[in-house]
Amino acid sequence: MALINRLDARDPGFATALRNLLAFEATQDESIDRAAADILHAVRTRGDDAVLEYTRRFDRVQADSMAALEIPKDSWHAALASLPAAQRQALEAAAGRVRAYHERQRGETWTYTEADGTVLGQKITPLDRVGLYVPGGKAAYPSSVLMNAIPAKVAGVPELIMVTPTPDGVRNPMVLAAAAIAGVDRAYAIGGAQAVGALAYGTAVIPAVDKIVGPGNAYVAAAKRRVYGTVGIDMIAGPSEILIICDGQTPADWIAMDLFSQAEHDELAQAILLCPDAVYLDQVAAAIDRLLPTMPRADILRTSLANRGALILVRDLDEACAIANDIAPEHLEISTADPEKWADRIRHAGAIFMGRYSSESLGDYCAGPNHVLPTSRTARFSSPLGVYDFQKRSSLIQVSRQGAQTLGRIAAELAYGEGLQAHAGSAEYRLDKP
Amino acid sequence: MALINRLDARDPGFATALRNLLAFEATQDESIDRAAADILHAVRTRGDDAVLEYTRRFDRVQADSMAALEIPKDSWHAALASLPAAQRQALEAAAGRVRAYHERQRGETWTYTEADGTVLGQKITPLDRVGLYVPGGKAAYPSSVLMNAIPAKVAGVPELIMVTPTPDGVRNPMVLAAAAIAGVDRAYAIGGAQAVGALAYGTAVIPAVDKIVGPGNAYVAAAKRRVYGTVGIDMIAGPSEILIICDGQTPADWIAMDLFSQAEHDELAQAILLCPDAVYLDQVAAAIDRLLPTMPRADILRTSLANRGALILVRDLDEACAIANDIAPEHLEISTADPEKWADRIRHAGAIFMGRYSSESLGDYCAGPNHVLPTSRTARFSSPLGVYDFQKRSSLIQVSRQGAQTLGRIAAELAYGEGLQAHAGSAEYRLDKP
Repeated sequence: MALINRLDARDPGFATALRNLLAFEATQDESIDRAAADILHAVRTRGDDAVLEYTRRFDRVQADSMAALEIPKDSWHAALASLPAAQRQALEAAAGRVRAYHERQRGETWTYTEADGTVLGQKITPLDRVGLYVPGGKAAYPSSVLMNAIPAKVAGVPELIMVTPTPDGVRNPMVLAAAAIAGVDRAYAIGGAQAVGALAYGTAVIPAVDKIVGPGNAYVAAAKRRVYGTVGIDMIAGPSEILIICDGQTPADWIAMDLFSQAEHDELAQAILLCPDAVYLDQVAAAIDRLLPTMPRADILRTSLANRGALILVRDLDEACAIANDIAPEHLEISTADPEKWADRIRHAGAIFMGRYSSESLGDYCAGPNHVLPTSRTARFSSPLGVYDFQKRSSLIQVSRQGAQTLGRIAAELAYGEGLQAHAGSAEYRLDKP
Repeated sequence: MALINRLDARDPGFATALRNLLAFEATQDESIDRAAADILHAVRTRGDDAVLEYTRRFDRVQADSMAALEIPKDSWHAALASLPAAQRQALEAAAGRVRAYHERQRGETWTYTEADGTVLGQKITPLDRVGLYVPGGKAAYPSSVLMNAIPAKVAGVPELIMVTPTPDGVRNPMVLAAAAIAGVDRAYAIGGAQAVGALAYGTAVIPAVDKIVGPGNAYVAAAKRRVYGTVGIDMIAGPSEILIICDGQTPADWIAMDLFSQAEHDELAQAILLCPDAVYLDQVAAAIDRLLPTMPRADILRTSLANRGALILVRDLDEACAIANDIAPEHLEISTADPEKWADRIRHAGAIFMGRYSSESLGDYCAGPNHVLPTSRTARFSSPLGVYDFQKRSSLIQVSRQGAQTLGRIAAELAYGEGLQAHAGSAEYRLDKP
């Protein structure tokens, strides 16, 4: 039996088959949502006591006080110093590249002055305080710390507070090392909905933040949804996806491994290849058959590729681009000659990897752009995490006395039309000759 | 009895009193949410038939088909031609100024090339299709059409679809005229949760959009919350607010009317004045007493000012700025000498109106910046509606063969550290000498 689905865009049932393959309904589990709500309520009303109780119970951490759950900064630096040199250098090189890229995203305040002296513009300021959630246990990824923390610090956020659960008290040295490199300001060994509540509402020990970012399990996601409005949140991510467009000239093993690199994340991850060359698709299928048994995460790969993966024969690369725009993938590899030509036709994708050497994994770690990207077709209306997520804008309006004469008459006319007489009166008071 | 509350920042109970004044918990009505969910489900499964039924029932509109609910474009232009000349000119002047301001917000694609030939950047593209909700009845504001539609068209959105309920079939000519001026592409006489559902899921007649913006009642807000993820949405606004910082030198009547211009929106609107001059606060209070009975919306003003308004005596303008940063108001007027000096200290506000001539009402209609602004302290982490809400970004990553040698080693090192062997393998395949 084939390890991955095969589709042909010329089949009459193709549109339906593709729709079924892509279908993913994020079902919200009612009991998880209820549990998250209860935890948030407890943290909101009982503060540190509640956070401490949940942390003892869920993470089996022995701690007498919230203060004991702070992870002191010197231990991050000790963790960094203890890493093998190659790993430390790789983390630092990645951080440097991510920082350099994100520095180009920083927005700047602008203003302009009109002929009558009226000044208009937009002031850009960083958020005061941001919370960064880092999952614990197996999915504790130092690269995620870099990708979430660096844009916040480049934006100028003065205080970045990391929370990460430490089941059985085990602290992940690579995560702590990444926090040291990325410029995190404080860290607490707490997680789950209780950590989200502490960050959103504040406790005696943990100050309330303005925004919470970072991935988490279903309880964390439910808690983030519920505190949205009190604080800002980043997107709640769906399963990760890659779509590869290939002209059939990239080594088949490379493409098979690129598909694996997405599929190995979890059973729901999605890996799809579009190619106009049926023989090449056979070669990739053969590479998958040959390579998959050698992979440590073969079980996850098997499930993910069988349920959600596909090799799709398309008429040509034009059709591949049209399908890509419909899918609006999180990651899009354009593994072809003249990748710029095809990238120009792409309207919706979180990240576009161009050319045979641009594997997604380079972007995941160190190319520079962010690896937090819109999933589940949301690239139609949203963007990679960036510095702009940690800055906000305030309109600037300084109307001159002369400007108030022109603007006041327009505003009063429209305000009367809308039946808002105080709006009109407020404008008319500024007229020299009403 | 005084028409507005008085507070003194030097009182020991001030912090609590201010917190109580600001307190506003957006209670979500469970029955409204349930009704919205049912309507969305009906529209999703039965399409136009469901939309038509709800529109007949809720808006008492006689229509045989969805096609009959399209508001033809020539009727917009007829509406525009039928307006009094002054009103038409005011709408066009406002639209011109809003367009000129927003054109400065347009983001542009950027790339840079590294020494080894690797190209990195960010591609900026408009959303394909946007839905604009415009409330019907009394709150049908043409200025809201301009403020929501113009940024979308400046962003380059090819298709902007307006929906607006027309109770008893009555169509608002100023709203249609504003749609013509702002460049809306299609309009339908539908509203409520059924219109949100039609835009989010698409029907045979109405195409699915990528984002829905615009204000609406509680059913519309509940429906928008529920379709978020399937489409993007703008913020769900709380009650409107103004905070005025005054040095006591602006005519008291002007400031009283500025407070009214916020309070007249609805009973929950909030109008607060901060001033270090107690005598001036008395003058403003007297102006309120004198002017309020002359206002057509006196009843709304009375409720709003009594429940949520305040004149607050502060020690000095420094303290006023600190309080403003804590409140993070939607609208902030700095009605003082040297307003730039104080504006520099403001970190959180949706819009900052500087100087005695910059009344909020000028910004509401025609200064240029958007009047859709973050409410309820969300200016701590969010921004005015803008062109950036109708554009999205895709990361561009084109790694050269030479670049893949450097990046591949870094990525592989980190991938092994995270236990993601396919990520490492994918990077290592691109190495000339593994």
